[in-house]
Formats: sequence, C-alpha cells, structure tokens
Amino acid sequence: MTGLYVLVHGAWHTGAEMEAVAGHLRGKGHVVLCPTIAGNNAGDDRNAIGLEQSIASIVDYIESKDLREVRLVGHSYGGMIISGVADRLTGRIKRLIYVNAFVPLNGQCLNDMVPPHYIGLFDAVAAGNNGAVMLPFEIWRESFINDADIELAKSSFAKLNPHPYKTFTDKIYLNRPLAELPVGKSYVNCRQDTALPHGLPWHPRLSERLGLFRLVECDGSHEMFFSNPVELADAINRAGRD
Amino acid sequence: MTGLYVLVHGAWHTGAEMEAVAGHLRGKGHVVLCPTIAGNNAGDDRNAIGLEQSIASIVDYIESKDLREVRLVGHSYGGMIISGVADRLTGRIKRLIYVNAFVPLNGQCLNDMVPPHYIGLFDAVAAGNNGAVMLPFEIWRESFINDADIELAKSSFAKLNPHPYKTFTDKIYLNRPLAELPVGKSYVNCRQDTALPHGLPWHPRLSERLGLFRLVECDGSHEMFFSNPVELADAINRAGRD
Amino acid sequence: MTGLYVLVHGAWHTGAEMEAVAGHLRGKGHVVLCPTIAGNNAGDDRNAIGLEQSIASIVDYIESKDLREVRLVGHSYGGMIISGVADRLTGRIKRLIYVNAFVPLNGQCLNDMVPPHYIGLFDAVAAGNNGAVMLPFEIWRESFINDADIELAKSSFAKLNPHPYKTFTDKIYLNRPLAELPVGKSYVNCRQDTALPHGLPWHPRLSERLGLFRLVECDGSHEMFFSNPVELADAINRAGRD
Repeated sequence: MTGLYVLVHGAWHTGAEMEAVAGHLRGKGHVVLCPTIAGNNAGDDRNAIGLEQSIASIVDYIESKDLREVRLVGHSYGGMIISGVADRLTGRIKRLIYVNAFVPLNGQCLNDMVPPHYIGLFDAVAAGNNGAVMLPFEIWRESFINDADIELAKSSFAKLNPHPYKTFTDKIYLNRPLAELPVGKSYVNCRQDTALPHGLPWHPRLSERLGLFRLVECDGSHEMFFSNPVELADAINRAGRD
Repeated sequence: MTGLYVLVHGAWHTGAEMEAVAGHLRGKGHVVLCPTIAGNNAGDDRNAIGLEQSIASIVDYIESKDLREVRLVGHSYGGMIISGVADRLTGRIKRLIYVNAFVPLNGQCLNDMVPPHYIGLFDAVAAGNNGAVMLPFEIWRESFINDADIELAKSSFAKLNPHPYKTFTDKIYLNRPLAELPVGKSYVNCRQDTALPHGLPWHPRLSERLGLFRLVECDGSHEMFFSNPVELADAINRAGRD
Repeated sequence: MTGLYVLVHGAWHTGAEMEAVAGHLRGKGHVVLCPTIAGNNAGDDRNAIGLEQSIASIVDYIESKDLREVRLVGHSYGGMIISGVADRLTGRIKRLIYVNAFVPLNGQCLNDMVPPHYIGLFDAVAAGNNGAVMLPFEIWRESFINDADIELAKSSFAKLNPHPYKTFTDKIYLNRPLAELPVGKSYVNCRQDTALPHGLPWHPRLSERLGLFRLVECDGSHEMFFSNPVELADAINRAGRD
C-alpha cells in the first residue's frame, strides 16, 4: 500500500534536510512532500514569526495543494506543527506520525516540555540574537547527533538555520485532545535520542498523550534524518502503513 | 544442548498459534509441544471454566505424558498457567520461561496486573458475551501486533477465539513465591510490546518477581508468535539453554 | 581518526580479559593498552590493597609511559578507577568512556551504588575469604553473562580472580564533579546488562552524573568483553571518536 506523506521538519531545519528520508520513502512507492515551515525559510523574520503563523503555513500548504489522506509526519518541534495542523484539518489527515516529536496539551508551549537548562540557554541566546535561537555545536554533537562521526556532525550543523524562538514560547490552541482526533496515531522512538534528558523523555512521556497509538522503534539519535535515513525511512514506513 | 519445551499460549490463542515458533525450535533440535489450555478449545464452555481448571489441564497434560526436565514457556496469560503448573509440578520443571507474560503473586488474578481501562473494557464485553472476552481489532492492530502489516494483523485476528473471562478474575494459589522455586527462570522481553501501557510494563515490573532470572530481549510486539517467529524462537532458545 | 585507548577492567578481571576487545579496536587502527589494576594481579595481597592504591597504579602506568590524549575506558568497577585517574591526570585525558561502569560522586564508594543484597553477599564472602570477594557462579551465569552459552559462562568464570573488597568500601576523593572535567565523556550501555537490578540501573542513573555525555548502546550483557567483543569494540569506537 502506497500513500501520501508530508514530512514536517524540526527546529533549525528546513524541508531540504528531510529529503534523504523522503527519497527512501519514495523508493517504497510513496508520494512524499517536504515543506519548510514559516520562520525557517532563508528570508523569514525570526523575530516576528510565532507558532500560529508557523502552523498556518503548513495548513495553507496542504489546502493549496488540496492534499487528502495525508500521513503527516512531524520531527521534534515539527510535532507542535502537525498537532496544530491535524486539529485544523482533521478530515484531510489519515495518520499522525511523531518522530521523537513534541505532543502538546492544549495551552502548552514547546518550552513547557523541555528541561529548565535548555530554557535558560535558549533565553540567553535569543536575547542576544534578535529573537533567534541556535544550538551550541558541543550539544549538537554529543546529545543530538551522537551516532554520527565528526565529519557528519559538522556538515549537518552547518546546514542548520537560526530558529524563531517565539515558536517555542507561544502556547498552542487545540480544539480537543490529540488522543480524541479520529485519525491514526504513531510514535517513532529513536532509542539513543538524548536531545531530551532521560528524566523528561520523548517516549513514553509524550507518546502516551496520543491515547491508542502504534509504537515503532529504531536505533539512532535525534538526528537520524542525517545519520541514518535508510533506517528512519523504514521506521516511518512501518509507522505509517495501514 | 537440546531439550523438551512446552509452549503455553496466551489468552484468545490456542496451541496451534504457537506452531510457527515451535517449528523453528524443533529446527534447533528440541522436542516442542503446544497444548491448548482448557477454556480455549473449540467446544469449551467459556462461562464455566476458571483459572484452576485451566492450570489443571496443563498439569494433566504433563503428567499424562510423564514429561520431565520441561522447559515451560508461557506467553502473556500463559504466565498465569505456567506459574500454577510449576507450583504443582516443580520436580518436573527444568526452567520457567516467561515471554512478556504475567508473573503473579500468591492470591493475585490477572486483572490485578492490568490497567483499569482494560478491566472496564473486559467487564463490559464479557457481560454482553456470556462470560467470554474479545479484543477490539483496533487495539489488536495498534497495541498488540504493531509490528505487522495490515494483512497479517487481520489474518491473525481471525484466528483468535473468545476467552473465558473467569480466568482473568480468579485468584491464583501458589504454595510459595515463584522466586523461591528451585528451577531456572528466564524472562523474554519483546521491546515494542505495548499490550500493557508503559506505566505498567511487563518488564521489569513483573519479571523482577522471579528473583534471580535471565533476561533476554528482542525487537518486536506482543504478538511475535505471528509477526516474527524466527526471532522469537531464537530468543526462547537463548532463554532456555542451560 | 585513530587514537590511543587504555582499557581498564572491572572487578574480578585483569587486563588479559580485555584483549579480545582490544584486538578488534587495534583492527580499526587504534593503539590499545590493557593494564591490570593493583589488587587484581596474581600475587597481590587482596586484604591490603584499597581504592586509592588501585587508582594510583593506573596513574603510574599512564605517567610512566607518558601517555597523552588518552581515551580512557572503564568497565564496571573500572569506572571508579578511571574517575580517579581523570581527576588526577586531567590534562592527559581526551575522553572518558564508561562501559556500564560506576560513576561516583566525591566521597562515594562502589558499595554506595549497589543494592543491599549484594553488600550482604559481599560482606559475608569477604569475611570468610581474607578480604577477597567472589561471585557465585549462578549469579554470574544468569545476571552477568546472560547472553552466553553455558560453555562460555563456565570458561569465563574460570578466568576470574578474587577481588580485594576494600576497593568496594573505600570512598573516592574527587577534586571536582566529573561533569566539570574538561574532557569528553561517553557512556556505553549494554542493554541486557542485569548485573545491577532495574531499580538501580547503570543508565541513566549513573550516566547522567557525567553532565553532557554521548550515549552509545548495544545489545548484550554486562560481560560483552567475553560474549560479544566485536560488537562491544564497535560501540567503544563510536563512543570514543571525536
């Protein structure tokens, strides 16, 4: 069974960084699209764009292309986006697939789900950087892409873009809990993902908010879109099939 | 080293569904038997049969065949059965092998180890179904056999039989804690098993009741007897060897 | 990138038992040394040697060979040793790599990190054995080397040496928390390691004391140096690279 996948990237990324995984999914016969969220495009004003505008950019993308039966995949921060999109466009979504992604409750912002030391770091960086946050390379290398060699750690870091911090602090509005949305739900857990600390893990802390969901796991870091796109595409395929 | 294995199935299953794994274990040189527990045979009265009768049916099976040095494997609900059998027939058992199976304390019933939402579901289904419980397909597909494609999810579901609910609510009697039985103990943990929620996991919550035990893990769902019999047979073999 | 590795063994072992992993690391181009800690050599007085002397023996080893840019690997009890060595010789260490190893706080002894039933066992054995502790074979086979067949379980057990118990009860002195040492830190977690019980796990309980660290995981028991040196060498290589 082949289908339509929309891959929604995480913070500091664009759709371009999803293309390696997208290619492997296309190799399985699927149609795969990789939009860039408002706020992460080259010319976007990092200081002005907030969460609602970012969600709206993907809502518009799906509506303008009249996409239906969408398997909507969100990575990391992309979980905030697909949660909002599915809330607005429920009838167009076949299944939500979270890839170590945030699963918000109504009224939560992304920062409500991360540890205090990240918030302190982000606050300081954004204050000195016109509202945009970046990750220090050392955290990227050891905690985000711990399964890569140093060359890939550096080359992938060089592709990241400054992220609009307002999208981390704006609260999401959801009409109903995600568990109640009449769409399929899957959670892909990359098992060596240490981007969140073990006391505040992606799974099961956030995945269980989905109610009845399908768990798929694979070995790899938070950044398997770079470090192991073959395995990640396979996991997403198993998460997305009927 | 080859040995004698008796595989005891879970709720809704019969010995027939253990045959794929049994075949791979036989391929390693073992003798493997797959009895069906009283209550799960085609003509059994689902409203009449309770836990003690179910345990007794496997006790009788082992005694009537005069089996000795048995590696006794229980899957899921089958953990209740092998616990009772080992308590009655300790001298005939070489090792107990729990495959994401219930490990009861004396005086506990299966329902004492599952989350409240299952009990509510089971109560309602059994009340309207003459004492027999079934699983909704959606739970089967997403939580029990999350590692299968839709065809296998459907074909395996079609093989399930209504389960006598009394076996979930009858308390087990054990002469002594399982940890004190002078037999080997192993626990096979299938890592993507979400049949129980993460707050009430199979392992280590139930496995640690075995005292000194051997842990073996493999990747797969609660229903690897269907979805990956080769890997499960390999795991059981490693769990069962001296 | 190739480098210099020093592998520091665990309790009951010597450097000789690290050689299989060392060989596979050498095959990747690294220089690998496997000293034996004071207290575990054939003629050492098990009743006299304590933690500080054991640490000093590896400090002396590194200084006498004038080793620099060391990737210092510690297994199990070896975590106590490398923690002390890195505290004394920080400038010679490039990265600390803990392989299901103890990560102490200042003033802690190894026994402060193990469950009470081990302490009771060790106390009793050491009292009757002139200050040396040994493991019962049954615990070795089921909890330490659960991924081996019985032949390997026995042959590896035969290589173990009585361990000086004072090294488990002496408190370590650290000039500053390990998280603050300006060296890389990695933790290799062997996932079926049940040498410590699940309520007091190696990871994340002890790994998170390292602050920012790189997590690497592999499938295997506490004794992969015996049961799967190829996979463990690969994991250490990924943990140790830049």
